Amino acid sequence: MASETARIEAFSDGVFAIAVTLLILEVKIPAVGAPHLRVQLLQQWPQYVAFVLSFAFIGIMWINHHRLFNYIRHADNNLLVLNLVLLLGVTIVPFPTAVLATRLGTPDQRTAAMLYNGTYVFIAICFNFLWRYSVSRKLLGHDIDYSAADKISKQYAFGPALYLICFLVAWWSVAVSLLMNFALALFFALPPATAEKLRLKHSANPRF
Amino acid sequence: MASETARIEAFSDGVFAIAVTLLILEVKIPAVGAPHLRVQLLQQWPQYVAFVLSFAFIGIMWINHHRLFNYIRHADNNLLVLNLVLLLGVTIVPFPTAVLATRLGTPDQRTAAMLYNGTYVFIAICFNFLWRYSVSRKLLGHDIDYSAADKISKQYAFGPALYLICFLVAWWSVAVSLLMNFALALFFALPPATAEKLRLKHSANPRF
Amino acid sequence: MASETARIEAFSDGVFAIAVTLLILEVKIPAVGAPHLRVQLLQQWPQYVAFVLSFAFIGIMWINHHRLFNYIRHADNNLLVLNLVLLLGVTIVPFPTAVLATRLGTPDQRTAAMLYNGTYVFIAICFNFLWRYSVSRKLLGHDIDYSAADKISKQYAFGPALYLICFLVAWWSVAVSLLMNFALALFFALPPATAEKLRLKHSANPRF
Amino acid sequence: MASETARIEAFSDGVFAIAVTLLILEVKIPAVGAPHLRVQLLQQWPQYVAFVLSFAFIGIMWINHHRLFNYIRHADNNLLVLNLVLLLGVTIVPFPTAVLATRLGTPDQRTAAMLYNGTYVFIAICFNFLWRYSVSRKLLGHDIDYSAADKISKQYAFGPALYLICFLVAWWSVAVSLLMNFALALFFALPPATAEKLRLKHSANPRF
Repeated sequence: MASETARIEAFSDGVFAIAVTLLILEVKIPAVGAPHLRVQLLQQWPQYVAFVLSFAFIGIMWINHHRLFNYIRHADNNLLVLNLVLLLGVTIVPFPTAVLATRLGTPDQRTAAMLYNGTYVFIAICFNFLWRYSVSRKLLGHDIDYSAADKISKQYAFGPALYLICFLVAWWSVAVSLLMNFALALFFALPPATAEKLRLKHSANPRF
Repeated sequence: MASETARIEAFSDGVFAIAVTLLILEVKIPAVGAPHLRVQLLQQWPQYVAFVLSFAFIGIMWINHHRLFNYIRHADNNLLVLNLVLLLGVTIVPFPTAVLATRLGTPDQRTAAMLYNGTYVFIAICFNFLWRYSVSRKLLGHDIDYSAADKISKQYAFGPALYLICFLVAWWSVAVSLLMNFALALFFALPPATAEKLRLKHSANPRF
Repeated sequence: MASETARIEAFSDGVFAIAVTLLILEVKIPAVGAPHLRVQLLQQWPQYVAFVLSFAFIGIMWINHHRLFNYIRHADNNLLVLNLVLLLGVTIVPFPTAVLATRLGTPDQRTAAMLYNGTYVFIAICFNFLWRYSVSRKLLGHDIDYSAADKISKQYAFGPALYLICFLVAWWSVAVSLLMNFALALFFALPPATAEKLRLKHSANPRF
Repeated sequence: MASETARIEAFSDGVFAIAVTLLILEVKIPAVGAPHLRVQLLQQWPQYVAFVLSFAFIGIMWINHHRLFNYIRHADNNLLVLNLVLLLGVTIVPFPTAVLATRLGTPDQRTAAMLYNGTYVFIAICFNFLWRYSVSRKLLGHDIDYSAADKISKQYAFGPALYLICFLVAWWSVAVSLLMNFALALFFALPPATAEKLRLKHSANPRF
């Protein structure tokens, strides 16, 4: 049974792993010859902020993808396509990250932060589509409690709204918007309260 | 049995995942200091078109590769080599994509679109070789209906011809050629009608 | 049982593999037209030193990660997050590597070597958190001898201290610091003496 | 049993897949504005030669790695380290490839071709160490005929010598050296004649 989604998970793991590792390529090596290296390294703090934020975001998305596919046991053609659209969003992340890294502290930072959060809104919507489709087409394991799955659906529904708020807040204050992004990454890193009520993949291990 | 092709699939998944994720590196970060970021982002629409088109194309190719290896259960040395030649085509994609992204809207766009579609013709031919070889050497699972497999072969035979038409149309109109590329990506995302007639890998799941 | 940590290992393998392979992108292709290629290739010896050192370091980290997950058989949400923080450290490595490669032999080499070893201190601390958490939450296999696991914990505790010494030595001599880095990579490549006392995953194979 | 080397294979697959996919990044996008795109694309033929040659080489190395780990069923710490050294060689390949691509047709092409073949000599030596170590430490499956394995060892022993000849021929003629490289890639793509005499992993499939 597991093998039905195994290759989807393997391909997705690859995309997540590459997207998260490519982020470091956007942190520029300071040019030789300019001021002291120490000064140069400190001056590019916006690049570190953008790097850590995007790393956290993609990492948390991977945890959530992992969590969903703990429940999803069957695959059909539409699921493959919905998963691809989600991965499209994931692979895009290094682009708005680099734009944000180069614009933080400049007059263009508002546009950059909105582009950044716009990407997150898109990905949050994709997660909703992927999960709701899986529930509605009964692609979850037979041992899953579907009423509990609905609670997950409700929790996920907040994602697009929350990132849309970050998007709008960026118009008013980029700093507050980025702080909210960090808070949201932490929020989605937490296991859903309802998870305990779902029968787990490995019932021998009640922790996961 | 599955393990015989498992490492081919793992290696191929890796190549597909990397090729699709590298595409974003070809979307250039707008230079700081020039016009407003908003304007710069809008001006590089050709890069987004090329990115999304190539992402869709590689994603669909992955789905098709996944589909074929649902049937292919045995591997011989020639299959490894044919699969490598297919992957050669896949890894090339970021190059014509970047060429297209930099040339759309310039007098060179015709050459760029023909290079782009030429790559697709090559990949479509590779898919045909891989599949026909697998059928002819009886590398499919013993539970597969080989007459149905022949129908897949017939459907796949259209691929090179269709991309060759896109290649020729690019000479006349690049825009029409690219629209046809999008349409073809959607076409190959659909499961072949004959798939239902093949006995599936996981007979417990009639959806896949 | 193994499948509970299988996807963590797959994702981690992907990140390690990509981080280690991206290192070569930081070795610059000598510009055409300047002096003889032979001379240019020899002149960029600092890039080769940094490349080989970082390759060894990431490779050894992968071996250690592999070793720990030979014992860790259960996963909870915190383990996923701790593993992500460790991988954050791993993906960073190409950045201080490139900084070191461009600064070796210049007055900035001290800062570069300290940045480099600072990254290693961070990763060594992450390894300790990951392992101690797994031990304290009893995520190891039921067949593991926990008193022996404590010996591993003690051995790992040296990691941050040793890299901190390298960090401080870099202030005094970059060359000695880098030599110590090589020695440490070799040290951590060795299996812990206590490993033999732990019951192994594959008891049929007493070598591993 | 298979799981003992499973993660080594997964990590190696990742490195091979990334190294082979990164090669395309070394094929430069022609600058906009210069001569006709068609002319520019034709002028950079050395980049295509280098790309295809290195793709074939890494691909063939993957097939050989796959072949060896069909026999190797046990892992010890030294095998991990020897495999890492082999992967070091694999990740280096994009560097000499890019150097060769930029130097073909210039007076520096001899140096570039020797660097290129020097890398191959190193990798061929690594393959020998990895295989001979596995044989001597009896890491192969219990069902393997060790006298047949010795024949593989003998065949592999030719690798370093053959690439050393290419290395020396490059001094006299770069073109002949590269043609020999292509011929060697094809040679190592062939299954060893002795393979049939070894008992195969999947005895149900006598083709592999």
